[in-house]
Amino acid sequence: MSSTRPDAAPVLVADIGGTNARAAIVTRPGSAPDPVFKRRTRDFDGLAEFLASALEELGGGHRPRSALCAVASPVDRDPIELTNAGWRFSRAGTADALGLDRVEFVNDWVAQGWATTQIGDDHLQTIHPGRPDPMAPRLALGPGTGLGSALVTPGSTDWQVFATEGGHISFAPRTAREWALVERIQARFGHCSAERLASGIGIETVYAALHDIDGTTPRRTGAEAIAQAALEGDSVCGEVIEMMTAALGSAAGDLALATGARGGLYLGGGLIPLLSDAFDWGLFCRRFTAKGRFRDYLESIPVHAMTHPAPALYGLSVYLTHSRM
Amino acid sequence: MSSTRPDAAPVLVADIGGTNARAAIVTRPGSAPDPVFKRRTRDFDGLAEFLASALEELGGGHRPRSALCAVASPVDRDPIELTNAGWRFSRAGTADALGLDRVEFVNDWVAQGWATTQIGDDHLQTIHPGRPDPMAPRLALGPGTGLGSALVTPGSTDWQVFATEGGHISFAPRTAREWALVERIQARFGHCSAERLASGIGIETVYAALHDIDGTTPRRTGAEAIAQAALEGDSVCGEVIEMMTAALGSAAGDLALATGARGGLYLGGGLIPLLSDAFDWGLFCRRFTAKGRFRDYLESIPVHAMTHPAPALYGLSVYLTHSRM
Repeated sequence: MSSTRPDAAPVLVADIGGTNARAAIVTRPGSAPDPVFKRRTRDFDGLAEFLASALEELGGGHRPRSALCAVASPVDRDPIELTNAGWRFSRAGTADALGLDRVEFVNDWVAQGWATTQIGDDHLQTIHPGRPDPMAPRLALGPGTGLGSALVTPGSTDWQVFATEGGHISFAPRTAREWALVERIQARFGHCSAERLASGIGIETVYAALHDIDGTTPRRTGAEAIAQAALEGDSVCGEVIEMMTAALGSAAGDLALATGARGGLYLGGGLIPLLSDAFDWGLFCRRFTAKGRFRDYLESIPVHAMTHPAPALYGLSVYLTHSRM
Repeated sequence: MSSTRPDAAPVLVADIGGTNARAAIVTRPGSAPDPVFKRRTRDFDGLAEFLASALEELGGGHRPRSALCAVASPVDRDPIELTNAGWRFSRAGTADALGLDRVEFVNDWVAQGWATTQIGDDHLQTIHPGRPDPMAPRLALGPGTGLGSALVTPGSTDWQVFATEGGHISFAPRTAREWALVERIQARFGHCSAERLASGIGIETVYAALHDIDGTTPRRTGAEAIAQAALEGDSVCGEVIEMMTAALGSAAGDLALATGARGGLYLGGGLIPLLSDAFDWGLFCRRFTAKGRFRDYLESIPVHAMTHPAPALYGLSVYLTHSRM
């Protein structure tokens, strides 16, 4: 389904996260974007500034007339607000500022969903091979600042990708310690979603809640510092990462059952690469399949980590083969 | 998408549940089946005996040459075993026994999923109108003996229906009493799924677990007797139905988030009609939307109860417009 038209106009693609912003120029829709321009989101005052900087660095011989951006936000409105980045922008205003004909937006997990339809073995780490059913849905899921998800379904002639809110399902505890955590998080936020444990904000929330349960004083700030301390042997931080990993595995299993995702689970998001060796894939897989009589069903589902440096940009490249710009 | 070909051959459709078996003859694919032949499944020795009885009663001027059956089982095998009914049958053997050219099978919740694409207001009770998004997935869900589900997605030219296992997601407790129940059920079955609370078997499981927690002796057997006692004011039975209802609402909310089902929630299954006035729709809806920041998202989702006497047969009729027999 990928296009290899030699006359395809280059398109500037961008993925704006709460922490990092990435961009690339796609000259062959469907191919892996390379090179990838990556900067801290907070180093720019807005979308137009970031895109101008990306165009200047990447442009070279290419002159894109349009841009396609993945954003962590609903895209059925104009202007769009990115709460995490503190940015607000309109389609027309952004296009005018950059001298482009057109700027369009796609939800960031819908973009990652499109990546799952084409991403190859060289950009995947297969955690568990499974026995994929090519006629079944696929699930794109991943922890970054939050926990994002999308549903990918095969049709008679083409794939479809649907935005979902899988990160916001209630977290189901399996141990008394996990239930104590759920009680604290419910009391603080009104609801204990999977995201409240299994994400960057989850690591900070669980760290605070465990100190609250144990009557100790938290000393660290930020998911990265907590993960680093876990790797250095800090026992509380180690338990935080363990609970986050278990919660992610458990939620992934629930989401796979809910969507019938026998086509495969594709993990993205910035948190797992950040955690590196502190992330225990064995624990993740044990909790993914710990669903009683449905263990075999879940064991048949392939689990892949997307290792491309920018799966959302890859997904935008694939999206361009379906929706020409 | 419904066919009104005057030359469409009549098809015998049947829905084989663990408790009841239903059949009808479809002469106009896509229309609501009427009349519906309904019997106790256990009153027949097997599928061919049931279908023969249905043909005799319904046949009249119609001579179906094929049958399409919804079964609570995976349908990618031959022979098919229906554990709950204690039946085992092959496609060819069943066709031969009845003198039919062809007998085909569809998963029962996939059939209910097809019903959601066409069922009209006269066969729906709208519990909550919402603001449906016609481009978003729909969710078919319902408690009978177990808790079944299917995912329904709109495509560019047609609907698709996918078998899912939403009843087997882990149940997420919100109260200490619910957590006590989860602990008992995990100890007994290894995993506490939504189905272990929100189904016919769930009512019996919760009834036993509550007696275990409270150190009392259970006296009743069967979901129907427990529901009847709840209506007559028995406090333990009342709590059982309340916990089942809350668990169903909570699981429905999780499944709607997991699938992005802004097209609507369509409830089927035999349990809600059986519970009648003991089923508290207000409690169901409160738990459906009790997902923190995603309350508005869930409140936008229409909730319908399918009131047709046989939604799976209706779904098979719709399926015939997509896959001619």
